This record gives sequence, C-alpha cells and structure tokens, in this order.
Amino acid sequence: MEEKKNRLKLTAISGFPEWLPEERMVELRMLDSIRSTFERYGFTSIETPAVERLDVLLAKGEAEHEMYKVERLAGAEDSHEAKFGLHYDLTVPFARYVAQNFGALDFPFKRYQIQDVWRGERPQVGRYRQFKQCDIDVINVNKLPLSFDAEVPAIVFEALAGLDVGEFELHLSNRKILHGFLEGLGIEQVLEATRILDKLEKLGPKAIEAMLQETLRLPTDTTQHCLEIATICRADESFSEAVRKLGVQNKLLDQGLEELTALLKNFRELSPGKVFADLSVTRGFDYYTGSVYEAKWLTHPALGTVAAGGRYDNLASKFSTQTLPGVGMSIGFTRIFGKLVADRSLKKTQKCPTQILVSYLDQAGSQRARQVAQVLRSRGFSVEVYYEEAKLTKQLQYANKKGIPYFWFETDSAVKNMSTGEQHPADPYSWTPEEPIIE
Amino acid sequence: MEEKKNRLKLTAISGFPEWLPEERMVELRMLDSIRSTFERYGFTSIETPAVERLDVLLAKGEAEHEMYKVERLAGAEDSHEAKFGLHYDLTVPFARYVAQNFGALDFPFKRYQIQDVWRGERPQVGRYRQFKQCDIDVINVNKLPLSFDAEVPAIVFEALAGLDVGEFELHLSNRKILHGFLEGLGIEQVLEATRILDKLEKLGPKAIEAMLQETLRLPTDTTQHCLEIATICRADESFSEAVRKLGVQNKLLDQGLEELTALLKNFRELSPGKVFADLSVTRGFDYYTGSVYEAKWLTHPALGTVAAGGRYDNLASKFSTQTLPGVGMSIGFTRIFGKLVADRSLKKTQKCPTQILVSYLDQAGSQRARQVAQVLRSRGFSVEVYYEEAKLTKQLQYANKKGIPYFWFETDSAVKNMSTGEQHPADPYSWTPEEPIIE
Repeated sequence: MEEKKNRLKLTAISGFPEWLPEERMVELRMLDSIRSTFERYGFTSIETPAVERLDVLLAKGEAEHEMYKVERLAGAEDSHEAKFGLHYDLTVPFARYVAQNFGALDFPFKRYQIQDVWRGERPQVGRYRQFKQCDIDVINVNKLPLSFDAEVPAIVFEALAGLDVGEFELHLSNRKILHGFLEGLGIEQVLEATRILDKLEKLGPKAIEAMLQETLRLPTDTTQHCLEIATICRADESFSEAVRKLGVQNKLLDQGLEELTALLKNFRELSPGKVFADLSVTRGFDYYTGSVYEAKWLTHPALGTVAAGGRYDNLASKFSTQTLPGVGMSIGFTRIFGKLVADRSLKKTQKCPTQILVSYLDQAGSQRARQVAQVLRSRGFSVEVYYEEAKLTKQLQYANKKGIPYFWFETDSAVKNMSTGEQHPADPYSWTPEEPIIE
Repeated sequence: MEEKKNRLKLTAISGFPEWLPEERMVELRMLDSIRSTFERYGFTSIETPAVERLDVLLAKGEAEHEMYKVERLAGAEDSHEAKFGLHYDLTVPFARYVAQNFGALDFPFKRYQIQDVWRGERPQVGRYRQFKQCDIDVINVNKLPLSFDAEVPAIVFEALAGLDVGEFELHLSNRKILHGFLEGLGIEQVLEATRILDKLEKLGPKAIEAMLQETLRLPTDTTQHCLEIATICRADESFSEAVRKLGVQNKLLDQGLEELTALLKNFRELSPGKVFADLSVTRGFDYYTGSVYEAKWLTHPALGTVAAGGRYDNLASKFSTQTLPGVGMSIGFTRIFGKLVADRSLKKTQKCPTQILVSYLDQAGSQRARQVAQVLRSRGFSVEVYYEEAKLTKQLQYANKKGIPYFWFETDSAVKNMSTGEQHPADPYSWTPEEPIIE
C-alpha cells in the first residue's frame, strides 16, 4: 500500500520524443542509410560531447536559440570551473572541435556528425526540444574549391532519397546575388533589406513591399526590383538571364551568378536530384557567405525546410587564428521522422530484429533448440529461442505478433515462412531464406 | 584586431571525452559490433531522451549518483512544468519506458540501449562525466524463466570478445547464497553484513573481519564463516560443495546454490566464455535479488569491473502496478575504449572511411574522375575524388596520409594498392579489391 502511494504518475515530457521499438527499428535503419551515404563519399564521423562551455555556445554574440544550461544537482561547480550548456546545433561544436584539434586533422577535412541537439523552446507541433541532426561539412585552410558547393547538396539529396519516404527537392542560391543586387540598386541597408525579403514566403509580396517601403523608405520601382529578383526560381541556368534582365550592374552580383551557374552544372554531373536556382533562399541571419541550400519534402511542403546549409568564409574565427572556409549542410532528421510517426505513415515491419524463432516442445528439445540457434547465429542470422515450454500454436502466435519472418521447428528440422505459410525441411548449417531478409 | 581580442582560449572540458577521427572510426566499429551481437539474439533497440524528470531520477530514494540538472538558460520553466535532469544510467529510463509504454510492448521484452549517460562526479583517471553504456535487459510480466540468467551474460561475453581487445572473464554469483548463508548463521543485520563483505576485495580480509566484529558484534567463528564463503571462487559446480562444507542450513541458501548451479550449466551450453562462480560478487546496493554478474578485463585488471548486472524481482515498482521481473547487464563501453586510447593501444587503421581515392590531372579529367567515382559508389565503395588539380605525387601523399587503401588513376584506368605498391588496369564497373577492405 505504501509503495502504491509513492508511485509516480508518468507523463511524456513534452518536446522530448521517444519511439516504440517498431518505430525505433525504422529510425535506426534510416540513420544507418544516411551514415552509409555520407561514408560512401569519404566523410568521416566525429562526435562531440552533449555539452559545450557556455562561452563557446554564446560566442556568436547573440543567443539565437534558446539554450539549456547544465549544472550539478548537488550544488554549483567550483567557481573556477567552466559553465556548461547543451549544444543547440552541430556547427558550433564542429567549429570548436576543428580549432581545438587543428594540428591533428588532415585538410580538407570532411566530417559527418549524427547527434542529438537541444533547444529550450516552447514545444509545438513538429518542433522538438531534443532532436537529431545529420550534418556534413567540408572545411579547408585558406581556400576551398567550389566543386564542394555541388558535392555537399548532391550527397544530402542522395541521403534524403535513400530514406524512401517520398520526393525531395533542393532550392539553391548564392548570397552574393541578392547582396550584390541590392548594392547595385543603391540600397545602403543591405542586411535589413535581406532580412525583410527572407520573410517573403511567409508573409507574401504585398506585406514585404509595404515593409520595404516603410522601414527602408525605398521608392516603388526599387521595391519592385527587390520582389522580382526574390521570386526568380528556375530549374536551369536561365535564372541568370532573368536577373540580367532586371538591368542591375554589380561585381558581387556577377560573381554570385557565376558561382550559382557553376554549382548547378556541377550538381547535375553528380546527381539526378530535382534542383532549382531559387533566389528567395537566403538562410536568414546565419554565417553563410556564398552558396545557400534548402531542401523541401514534396510530400509535406507545409513542414518547410527539412535540410539546409551553405558556404562560409571562416567558420571558426572565434576560436582559431586560421582562416577556415567551408561548406556544409544539415538534415533535420527528427522533423522528417517525427512527421512520419505523427501521420502513421511509417513503414513498420517488425517489433524486433529477430529473423528466426526456434521453437521446442520439451526440456531435451530446449537444449537442441539452443544449439540450432547458435549455429544460425554463427552464420550471421538474428535468432531467438522461444523462452519457455509451450504449445506450438502459442509459439507461432508469438512469432506472428512480433513480425518474425521465419519459424524453426526443432522437432522436425523444418522452417516455416511466416508470410507465405510454406514449410520446408532445413539444416541450420546450410539453410538460406528464399529472399533476403529485411534488417 | 578586435576579432583577435574576442577569441576564446579553448581547453578540453574535463571528464567529457572526445576522440580524433581515427579513434572515432574504431569506436564506431566497436559499437557496431556490440549492436550486431545484441541483435543476433533478437534484442531490439530503444532510445530514451537524455533527460528524465527529476522525480523519476530520484525515485530510488537516495541519490546514489551525482546528477546534472538541466534548465533553460533564459530563465526558469513555467512553475507547472517538470524539472529535468540528465540520466545517470540506462536502467531507470528503461524502467520508466516499460511502465509508460506497457500496453504497446510485447513480453518478454528484450531490449538493448547504447547511449551516453552523465554523472556529475569530480573526474579522475578512467572516470568520466559523460560516457557510453551498452545495456541489455529482458523483462517479463510476473515471471521470467531462469534460462535468461545464462543468456544475458553469454551475450555480453560474446559482445566483449567481439571487440578484439584482449580476454575477458565473467564472475557470477547469486545474492540468495550470501543472504541465506548470513541468515543461516543467525546474523540479523544481513544487509549491513553484505555491505561490509562487498568491500572485501578493496580492503582485504583483516579489515573486513575487524569491521564485522566491531560494527555487528559478531563472534570470531561467525566472521570466519563469512570470510570463507566470500572467498569461494571456482570455475565449476564445486563451489556448491565448498559452501555446503561450511555447514550452514538455510532455504534461501539452497535456492541460491541451485540457481547458480543451473546458471553455470546453461551458460556453458551457450558460450565458450571464461566463467567463475565467485561468491564475493554482490553488486553493492543495487536492486538485484538473484543472479549477479561482473566482467573483468584480463588485460587491465586494475580497471576493475567493465560490465555488470543481475536479476531483479521487480524493476518498475515506482512507476507501475505490474510486477516486472527482469535480468540485465551493462557494458561500461567508455571505460574500455578510453583505456585503449589512453594507453595508445587502439588498433587505428584509417583517418576516414574512404576506400578508393580517384585522382585526375586536368579539368577534363576531373569530370571523368567524378563519373568513375559515382560508378564505384553505386557498387557500394567509399570513394573520394581528389579535391583539386595537383601533381600525382601530392595526390599519392594525401592517400597515404589518410590511410586510403586504393588509389585510382583516372588517366590510365589503373588502380594502385597503397600497401603493396602493386598497380593493375581496372574498370570501375567490375574492379574488386584483392582482399576485403576493412571498414
């Protein structure tokens, strides 16, 4: 009775997702697939601790993201010890890692990082406080070839396509285009204008036009030009001509158009991915300085951007005396996976990785069943022995409920295919499934 | 200049390990190997969030482990929101998960969990504040067959052996033996006596004898009996006879001896693992009620226990009205891996997963090189194209430095084996390496 009184009422912690075994199996398979794509392009894994020093997390100047701090429950750390927080992305830890281990790394350094990140936001549908990101970045010393600007989104496209959850498309731009264009128009507050144009998709052209006119006091023909360039979205190199037609001359603009044209061409050599030169893409207030990328999931356009990234001139300026240009992209994995779970559209197959359930009927059979199982395991199969003496029907029900594809009769040395119902004699040393087993 | 002033001095955060890419590659390979062993026995993955509610973490009554609490940096959460802490093991989250998802799980539920845990301890050599544990547990409703008491340590032995880092041995006991024995001796403060005997290995027999006599006021012959049973360690069933010879009669003792004898027998049917019935093993003040396990790494005996576990009558009594007996074991992965890194005895092979580096000499070659790479990738190989136009010697140096095993000459359609120096003509559609490539 007393124990009952002390029992805790459990409720899910809002914003911290957790999956059932059959969902987790799919999540693992998808994460494996992403990792395998990253590795096929020679990217190497790093993992950084969940925590970073608060001064590192805050080094960007403004706390863009709500952060979690971490402290000993028993009391404050010694005053000379650093204060920690949970990382809110994988880019800041990566920059710190490269600066800290600079002498031990080989450049260009191509790394991937698949980890949880934490943000102390008020949770809402499709937003999480803990979620997985899958990042790739290439970083080099002083100079990084433009070819990587195409390789990175091509790899991410392949990784997304490999999830087998519908179509994705990539929207690419180059920050130099909009910056140069706005400069060429004689706009002095280029950053402010970019910030306003970044909201075009959300607020619509009318609202943006009003904001440009009111906040920046731009004349009507200038705001018209701004809206025209921001709505250029082409599947081929014709975007460049469309920009030229607007009649603005600027060197940075020229450079941006040239880079984006090369990026499109290089991308097509690498990937069959559906891709657009989309001049509305600016990636907000991030540290990007050239190419910028956004990926959209065509099955769920309302979900917005599910992967994003770009090129930066110098990632680790707060931590390193080296100039370290790079290009990278991040997949918001939990955004995608959480949506599949919420919509009940996850292709679940099994509740456990077991491929073969070995049955037995009595104590002597139990020992033989265990031997059969060990032989099958030594050949790489995932095998369970049924856990107690029980009637065959009960054992078959168990296999069925858990989605185990093959059922082994120890008594008859025979195997039943649970989906076709067919049954054949079998030897544990030589048996192979008719078709490759998933997982 | 201003930027330089603001630059942060980076130092590793003590107790939060982080590995170089070549170390991380080995860590990933080892974690994959453990996961694959767990899955071969039909265990399914679950993952719980890094945080739990503080009342869940503190439900055991006493805060055995130093904990970290997590709070929004910007200010306290709403007062009605739960307070969080980072989990300090994977058992409490597992118990909470089973209780919370009880209706959606199939029993017996066999799960593995490979995750980081956090402890706010003062770090010292071989101790971490963030470290990886690899746990397996089987849990059932009301009753769990004794056969799992052998399966769990057999699986862990296979997982440890699969790491290929030297020999491990398992020390098994059953708490009922010592409890029953102490009861049979007429000792009333059984738990207190167990606690003292648990320190035998650390403090030695003289100190333990003195403590038993002083704290519990036990007569000399009783303390002698206590020491005798706690030093019994046998590789076969003869431990039972050795206990019997001490002449103590008790029903719980009988049951314990029977269970441990069965465990040893069942274990040998499953595993070639080096195993001892070691009656000094008690697993401190944990919730174990029957079988208890410890694994030692023979290469580094001073490191102590590297994996441990046991059977419990009811895991989730604080969270559930169900009686949920189980048996499980946890591998202290980072303890093992960190020791290998610290001793420089890690078998590092490569700095990246790249198996083939494709070289080229000019712009036209670059495009052909990318095509060759895509063909090889479609066949499952990990391939990098050298990142810029450069002399062949420089490209060969790059492959060498990163430990890339094969070098592809786009110009000659030939492949060089970097370790033997041999070079052969090759077609990307049909080429295969002479021997399987590691990783």
